[in-house]
Amino acid sequence: MTGRVVPEQWRSSGVTVPRGEPGTARIAVDLLGGDEAPDVVVDGALRACQADPSLHLTLVGPAAAADAVLAALDPADRHRISTSVAHAGTVGDAVRAVAEGRADALVSAGDTAATVLSAARELGRWPHVRRPALAAVLPTAAGRLVLLDVGSTVDPDVETLAVHARLGAAYASVVHRVAEPRVGLLTIGTEPGKGDRLRRALPPRLAELSLPAGARYTGLVEGGDVVTGTAADVVVTDGFTGNVLLKGLETGYALAGPPAPDTELPPRAALLLGVGGTVVVCHGAATGPDLAAGIGFAADLHRRGSVAAIADLLRYSEVSHD
Amino acid sequence: MTGRVVPEQWRSSGVTVPRGEPGTARIAVDLLGGDEAPDVVVDGALRACQADPSLHLTLVGPAAAADAVLAALDPADRHRISTSVAHAGTVGDAVRAVAEGRADALVSAGDTAATVLSAARELGRWPHVRRPALAAVLPTAAGRLVLLDVGSTVDPDVETLAVHARLGAAYASVVHRVAEPRVGLLTIGTEPGKGDRLRRALPPRLAELSLPAGARYTGLVEGGDVVTGTAADVVVTDGFTGNVLLKGLETGYALAGPPAPDTELPPRAALLLGVGGTVVVCHGAATGPDLAAGIGFAADLHRRGSVAAIADLLRYSEVSHD
Repeated sequence: MTGRVVPEQWRSSGVTVPRGEPGTARIAVDLLGGDEAPDVVVDGALRACQADPSLHLTLVGPAAAADAVLAALDPADRHRISTSVAHAGTVGDAVRAVAEGRADALVSAGDTAATVLSAARELGRWPHVRRPALAAVLPTAAGRLVLLDVGSTVDPDVETLAVHARLGAAYASVVHRVAEPRVGLLTIGTEPGKGDRLRRALPPRLAELSLPAGARYTGLVEGGDVVTGTAADVVVTDGFTGNVLLKGLETGYALAGPPAPDTELPPRAALLLGVGGTVVVCHGAATGPDLAAGIGFAADLHRRGSVAAIADLLRYSEVSHD
Repeated sequence: MTGRVVPEQWRSSGVTVPRGEPGTARIAVDLLGGDEAPDVVVDGALRACQADPSLHLTLVGPAAAADAVLAALDPADRHRISTSVAHAGTVGDAVRAVAEGRADALVSAGDTAATVLSAARELGRWPHVRRPALAAVLPTAAGRLVLLDVGSTVDPDVETLAVHARLGAAYASVVHRVAEPRVGLLTIGTEPGKGDRLRRALPPRLAELSLPAGARYTGLVEGGDVVTGTAADVVVTDGFTGNVLLKGLETGYALAGPPAPDTELPPRAALLLGVGGTVVVCHGAATGPDLAAGIGFAADLHRRGSVAAIADLLRYSEVSHD
């Protein structure tokens, strides 16, 4: 089975695959991605393997680094971690492992723009998706919230954010099992006319938009609503603002604790939505535990068939417009 | 003495006025500013008076609302709270009270754009300041941090943010007593070339900029740096991103606690920098305690002569360019 999700291979039943179903997940990991690569990547890979006995990792990188990783591995880990020598860029070769069916998903903490570009080229984009969206998950006092885009598209236009609203709604429905997700537009005041040029132009387009999974556009939200979670399940914004807010909140939660007691912090990793495969992006400053969480997240998405299910949901919701 | 700060009245000694020096502070408060006005404004005014025996407030609003406030006041509070009937907009008349020397400072939780416009028109702008900046203060694990702009200028150009960098540096020096403030530019990755169009254009301009108070531009920072405070004392951004991040972090700190133990949360109020007077802006969703904190902040700034000192510092640092 290939991890690549192309239209003719969309599975309509992906959403019903139960979470945690046993099954091997083969994850390609960009060995040179991240500020502290390759050390944190190797650390993350080992942690991920220890946490999940059905994980097989391929670390994609230059020959010397890959050989060093293998040589340093405990024999017990060696059968589940292999290396693959990168010929061009490490992320490009890791994406190709997914495209060619040698891996089920990709994890990279490298340059986001390079990952997005490579993924769009090698895995293809979904119909109507000109610019893929990086979707992050944040803990809130009212449950998990999808924030997108968090860094893929920094100067988007109205139509890009409209497409992202659809992607985010499908994500919340499939991955978070939210019934009729509420989609909000991030801005700086809830009265009409607030915000910058982009935000003033967006509300009419979002209001008329056909959203999947019974989702509805519920209007303008503010920074605080991304913390409380009371106004929306999905928050749409440009990749610049989303990245800044995400990193601010994540750092705050790491120092002060989550926004509600007993809230588990989600992985500090984002899913690239709109390309034909499971691509998970970690921050450049990711630690070993962050990489391990990103790898676990990618494996979970693969086992649940989440990306195929999201693509499927979007395809069906588009039928009426064809 | 008038609260208006015009160039010929700049005081070079403002910075040395000790904090908390006894002295009446006369604050004009916009009675109709805020989502829950006038109730939260009256609540905030009473709280502020209880906390500060040398405070005199003028609540500026429509006759009926103003009369109702006065009638409901405890006789003990009545001599320190007066009302002023607004003839045009409430914030405009409140600004005029400062411009005409009837008040030392203004506090409003009303529409930011209206307050900025009115303040620029009635109080005048400092030299070289085309667009005033709203400067907020955030607690960090390493001390207080100035974040600007947080809502005054949502679509700024390079030159506007360069001016704001100067305003923020002077603020950190005068109000937070930071020696040689470090000024950072908020973006989404610290490698060169990251960020949107505005952020890619800014670094060369900031690097060549003459900053006051020995401040220096220390480069690109990310959302997490606004929480840790380790990379900069002043963080410059556009008003859209700044407002979103501020409201997100403030809400997070309110729910989860501050980013470091024993950190006192600063008032949820921002100072308008670049106009000839002390103008403090609270969020539209401000509570009574938020308004009281904003009023206390305005009184403190007035007593310390902070706004005059900031203007003064900027004027002297500009001499070499004249």
